Amino acid sequence: MNQSITSPSGFMAAAAACGLKTNGKNDLAIVVCNRPATSAGVFTRNLVKGHSLQRTMACLQDRPFARGIIINSGNANACVGPQGLADAEEIAKQLAFELGFDPHDVLTASTGVVGQALDMNKLRHGIADACTRLDLSEEAGHLAAEAIMTTDLVAKEIHTSYLSEGEMVQMAGMAKGSGMIHPNMATMIGILTTDASIEPSLLKQALKDAVDKSFNRTSVDGDTSVCDMVVIMASGQRGQLIDTFEHEDFPAFRQALEYICTGLARKIAADGEGATKLVDIRVEGASSAQDAYLAALAVAKSPLCKTAFFGQDANWGRIITALGYSGADFDPTQVDISIGQVAVCSGGRALPFSEAEAMKVMKQAEFYVLIKLNQGLFSDHYWTCDFSFDYVKINASYRS
Amino acid sequence: MNQSITSPSGFMAAAAACGLKTNGKNDLAIVVCNRPATSAGVFTRNLVKGHSLQRTMACLQDRPFARGIIINSGNANACVGPQGLADAEEIAKQLAFELGFDPHDVLTASTGVVGQALDMNKLRHGIADACTRLDLSEEAGHLAAEAIMTTDLVAKEIHTSYLSEGEMVQMAGMAKGSGMIHPNMATMIGILTTDASIEPSLLKQALKDAVDKSFNRTSVDGDTSVCDMVVIMASGQRGQLIDTFEHEDFPAFRQALEYICTGLARKIAADGEGATKLVDIRVEGASSAQDAYLAALAVAKSPLCKTAFFGQDANWGRIITALGYSGADFDPTQVDISIGQVAVCSGGRALPFSEAEAMKVMKQAEFYVLIKLNQGLFSDHYWTCDFSFDYVKINASYRS
Repeated sequence: MNQSITSPSGFMAAAAACGLKTNGKNDLAIVVCNRPATSAGVFTRNLVKGHSLQRTMACLQDRPFARGIIINSGNANACVGPQGLADAEEIAKQLAFELGFDPHDVLTASTGVVGQALDMNKLRHGIADACTRLDLSEEAGHLAAEAIMTTDLVAKEIHTSYLSEGEMVQMAGMAKGSGMIHPNMATMIGILTTDASIEPSLLKQALKDAVDKSFNRTSVDGDTSVCDMVVIMASGQRGQLIDTFEHEDFPAFRQALEYICTGLARKIAADGEGATKLVDIRVEGASSAQDAYLAALAVAKSPLCKTAFFGQDANWGRIITALGYSGADFDPTQVDISIGQVAVCSGGRALPFSEAEAMKVMKQAEFYVLIKLNQGLFSDHYWTCDFSFDYVKINASYRS
Repeated sequence: MNQSITSPSGFMAAAAACGLKTNGKNDLAIVVCNRPATSAGVFTRNLVKGHSLQRTMACLQDRPFARGIIINSGNANACVGPQGLADAEEIAKQLAFELGFDPHDVLTASTGVVGQALDMNKLRHGIADACTRLDLSEEAGHLAAEAIMTTDLVAKEIHTSYLSEGEMVQMAGMAKGSGMIHPNMATMIGILTTDASIEPSLLKQALKDAVDKSFNRTSVDGDTSVCDMVVIMASGQRGQLIDTFEHEDFPAFRQALEYICTGLARKIAADGEGATKLVDIRVEGASSAQDAYLAALAVAKSPLCKTAFFGQDANWGRIITALGYSGADFDPTQVDISIGQVAVCSGGRALPFSEAEAMKVMKQAEFYVLIKLNQGLFSDHYWTCDFSFDYVKINASYRS
C-alpha cells in the first residue's frame, strides 16, 4: 500500500529510536497536523489506566482539538505513580516547544511494559530527533506505523477515500496490537487521520459507533490492556463541513470510518500473538441483540475452541459447549453449526460430515463459523484467532 | 494412599474396558452401595447438558436415594439427540438387572467426546464384565478412579474420617477433569462416598456449600463442560443420624466434605491440561464479596497471567490489568500485590524487588499471589494453573 496516515491533507509524521526498545528499532512516532484538527478518542474501559492515556482523555474532554499525537512503544507508562502523569506532561511540552504548539494540543500514548518509569533522558533525545524528521511523505507514515509496534509481526495501515461535491476526501489509519486484545474498549492503539471537515460531536459519535462494530468485536486473548485507545484527527481541508446528523456526506464519512476501523481490527486479529488464522464467529437467529453478542463472544474467547481452530479440528462440541455457558438464552436442541460451508451440527445434534472437507476449510488463513440459534432475528459476530504454541511462547517470556 | 471410595462401609466398585477409549484402557467405572444410599448431586450450569447427566438430575430430583452410579469415559453422550437419553436409560437398566436394583436407583455419568452416539454394543459387554468384578477392596476403588480419567495425567482420590460417638465415620472421593474446568458448575465428575447417616436435605445443602468453596473456585481454562457433576452417596452405616442443621455431628460432616471437595479441586487444578504449577489467587480487602470474587476470577482466568506463571515471570502489570477489567470496584492507586512473600506492587505502583527471589517463588509447584485491594473487609480466592505449550498441544489434537 502506498498511502499512509500522511495521505490526508494537512498531516505529517515521523519516527525515531529512543532506545526504549532494546533491539534498537524505532520506538517513537509523531503524527501532527498543520492546523488544530477536530479530534475524538475512544479509551480503555479498564479501571486501571495508563498515565499517557489519562492525559489524552483529559485533553480531549477539555477541548476536542489537537495539533498532534506522540506515541512511544516499549513502555506503557502505567502504574508508576504521580511520575507517570508528569512524564506524559513533559513529553507533550517538549513536542509543543519544538513545533510551536500549545502543549494542551499534543496528545500522548504509550504501549509496552507496565510498572516501569519512562527513561525520560532517552525520550528527550528521541523527541528532538523525531521533530527534525517530520515529513509529508507517505514513507514517514509507514515508519510511524512501524515505530508503534510491540509484539506485532506486521505494521497495520489502511486508507480509503470518498467524494464530497467532486472533491476527494481521504481517511487513513495505523494501529498496533496483537496481545491483550479484547472488547469493550478501544483494544489497542489506533491513530486515524482524515482531511474531512466535521463537527466534534459528530466525529465523536461516528468514532464510537465504528469502534463498537470493529475493534470491540475482536478478541485475541480476552485480556484488556490499560493503555488502549483509538484517536482520530480531522484536518478539515477537504469536502463540505459535516455539521448535522442529516448531512448528505455523513453516511459516506461513517462508511469510510467503519472501513478503516474494520480493516485495522481484522489486521489485529489476524496478527494475534502466535495466531495462524483469522476466524469470524457469526451468530444468527438470536432472540435478542445481547444474546447474539454473548454467544459470539463466548466462542471467540474459549481457549478450547481456539486451540481446536489451531489444530484444524472440526470440534463443534466445544463450540456448542461455549454457547451453553455464554449466558445467551436459547434452546440447545435448535442449534445449527457450520464451519465454513460444512454443516456439522443440526438441531443440537451431530451431522455426518467429511472431516477432510472441514479440515480443508480450517486450513485457510481465514474462515468463518456460522451458528444459527433459530430463536429470533438478531445476529452479531466476533473476530478471533487461533491459540498456538507461539502464543504461549511469546507470553511466557515477553514482559508486557 | 491406601483408602479409596470403597473404604466407607457399604460400598463396592469395579472397572472395565469397553473399548470406548481407543488405547484399550479401562473406560467404565461402577460404584454401588449395599443399600439405598442417601444421595445428592450438583450439576453443570451449562445450558447444554449431556444426556447421562440429565437423567441423573431427574432421578435425584424425583428421589434423593441411589444404589449406585455408572460412569463411562471416552464419550460424553451429549448432543446426540433423543438416542442419548435412551442410551443412558438402557445403561441404567442393564446394571439394575445384573445387580437386582430398581433402574431408577442407578445414576449415570459420561465424559469424553461430544456429539457422537455411544457404541452400546461395546457398553453392554463392558457393563456385564464390570458387574463380575464388583469388589469391596480398596484396589477396586483405585481402578474405578483410573477408569474415569480422560486427559488426566493422574487419578484423583482422597479420604478422611471423623468421630461420631466413638465411631469412625469415613468419607472418600474420586474425581476426573483437567480441561474444560471452570466455575459456576460442578466443573468435572466427582463421586463421593460416605458411611455417614444424614437427612437428604442436609446432605444436599452441605454438598452445595462444599462445592461452592472448592470446585467452583478452580479454573483451568475458563471453559465449562456439559457433563460435569459431583454426586455423593451416604450409606448411613456409621455414626448418629444427622437430622437437623443444629446436630452436633453436622459441623464435623461439613468439614470432612469440604476437605474432600477441596482436596479433589486442588488435584484437578494441579493436573490442569499441560499445567506445571498450582497457583492460589488470593484477594483481600475488597469492598464486597462479589468484588473479591470477580477480582480473583479475572486473574485466575487471564491467559496472559497464566502464561506469565508458566514463564516464571513476576509480571504484576498483567495482574493489575486483569483486576482493572474484572468488574470489581476498587481504587487502582490502593492496590498491593505480592507473589508469594515477594512484594511487587504497592499503592498501584511498582516496588523494587528481586527478580531472582520472585522467580524462586514461581518455580515452585505451588505458590500464591496475594492481592490487597485495601477497600474493605471481603476476601476470596481462586485456584488456577499455568498455561503451557502442552495445553495447546493437548487441545489442538484431542477431540473432546
